[in-house]
Amino acid sequence: MRKIYLIGIGAGDPDHLTLQAAKAIGRTDVFFLLDKGELKASLVDLRERIVRAYSKPSRRMITGRDPDRDRTPADYEGTVDDWRRRRSLVVEEMLVEHLKEDETGSFLVWGDPTLYDSSLAILEEVLARGKIDFEYEVIPGISSVSALAAKHRVPLNRVGRPYQVTTGRRLAEGWPEGVDDVVVMLDAQQAFTAYPDVDIFWGAYVGTEDEILRSGPVSEVADDIVKTRTDARTEHGWIMDTYLLRRREDQ
Amino acid sequence: MRKIYLIGIGAGDPDHLTLQAAKAIGRTDVFFLLDKGELKASLVDLRERIVRAYSKPSRRMITGRDPDRDRTPADYEGTVDDWRRRRSLVVEEMLVEHLKEDETGSFLVWGDPTLYDSSLAILEEVLARGKIDFEYEVIPGISSVSALAAKHRVPLNRVGRPYQVTTGRRLAEGWPEGVDDVVVMLDAQQAFTAYPDVDIFWGAYVGTEDEILRSGPVSEVADDIVKTRTDARTEHGWIMDTYLLRRREDQ
Repeated sequence: MRKIYLIGIGAGDPDHLTLQAAKAIGRTDVFFLLDKGELKASLVDLRERIVRAYSKPSRRMITGRDPDRDRTPADYEGTVDDWRRRRSLVVEEMLVEHLKEDETGSFLVWGDPTLYDSSLAILEEVLARGKIDFEYEVIPGISSVSALAAKHRVPLNRVGRPYQVTTGRRLAEGWPEGVDDVVVMLDAQQAFTAYPDVDIFWGAYVGTEDEILRSGPVSEVADDIVKTRTDARTEHGWIMDTYLLRRREDQ
Repeated sequence: MRKIYLIGIGAGDPDHLTLQAAKAIGRTDVFFLLDKGELKASLVDLRERIVRAYSKPSRRMITGRDPDRDRTPADYEGTVDDWRRRRSLVVEEMLVEHLKEDETGSFLVWGDPTLYDSSLAILEEVLARGKIDFEYEVIPGISSVSALAAKHRVPLNRVGRPYQVTTGRRLAEGWPEGVDDVVVMLDAQQAFTAYPDVDIFWGAYVGTEDEILRSGPVSEVADDIVKTRTDARTEHGWIMDTYLLRRREDQ
């Protein structure tokens, strides 16, 4: 039976790798990569460094072309569904062509494969089409959320209270009901600027050599974060940032 | 300057340890443990196994007595505050007595130190009292939430949508507003039984040899989970369980 690992490799620090992930990499015959065709050279380097460090010499690397995606669609969920379907066809073709019956293949996933990542859904789509059969296992990783909170040395939750993880798109529609602590991912529009009265713990490229951290009341640090973010994005050609918003106890 | 690491060691599987955590353990002169006085022998074993495997031979182990805590208090947050203060006094005493000026001390934390754990707040309390000074760093770990989702091979969020992490106590007060996906921790009362129409992904001792997983519609699997949980708790003397509740698309 073919075996596939979805391996969380952490948020950007090579030392985020778990022993479980390193061992799975060591058992892998074929690594499957989707090339985003973007300039994320530092991330690609890191991934290749990890593969070189922990894989067996005979392992093969297969790179597929990641389908393009409309980044500003009118129908967000429909567009994501369509993009995922096209990705799943690329993945299926790679698996059919390159993963032999008794081999083990791996996908290395940034952060944690169960958090705002489509790899799990893609594998399920491939299985559902029935053109190729395999078993698969998910190896958890340090998420950008955990890495962010650790660097800022703040708990995600307060005692006995909930927190919510959401997207910039959702936050722009309003502060979530019933929570005072909100983690925001995938924010291309700096939705935090609408909440001057809360505290923010912001980080970009967390865990990498390019890491930037900022924190404070949004009213005081928002301008700096917006400018820092724009400059960093220009400099690196891409940005990956996350933040925690926290209402103060007196709010 | 004294240095302290708060090290997340993962949810129960020794292979959840990250390279970063293993390296920090290797740099540690003194490990500080709080003995809960409870029969969690398998967890204590695992922690000692990790220390033995990655620490230097000269390291010392200091065990303090964890203060007792009222598990069914009338004033939950007040009781937790009080318990944390008493713990911080125990920690302060251990540090003053056993961590020399230029040494590095570590606390090993289950899961992730930023998720429903009091160690961060305790260190801040010790610092605020000013009796001892130190710098400290948080090393993120695989949380029981990540481990649970990985084992069930389910994403925590759905495309572009939020999820909430909350407690059993809160869930018993009602389903959180604005989310269809809820992760529940610290549930001593099986609050999920009040939501027969949603799907549950439940796990106990996730990542350990005693791991138990159950999933399905709450209406079909709740009785089994309640019984399994009671039996396991009796057998092991303690239980650590977590679950994800997910409304179905048509709800």
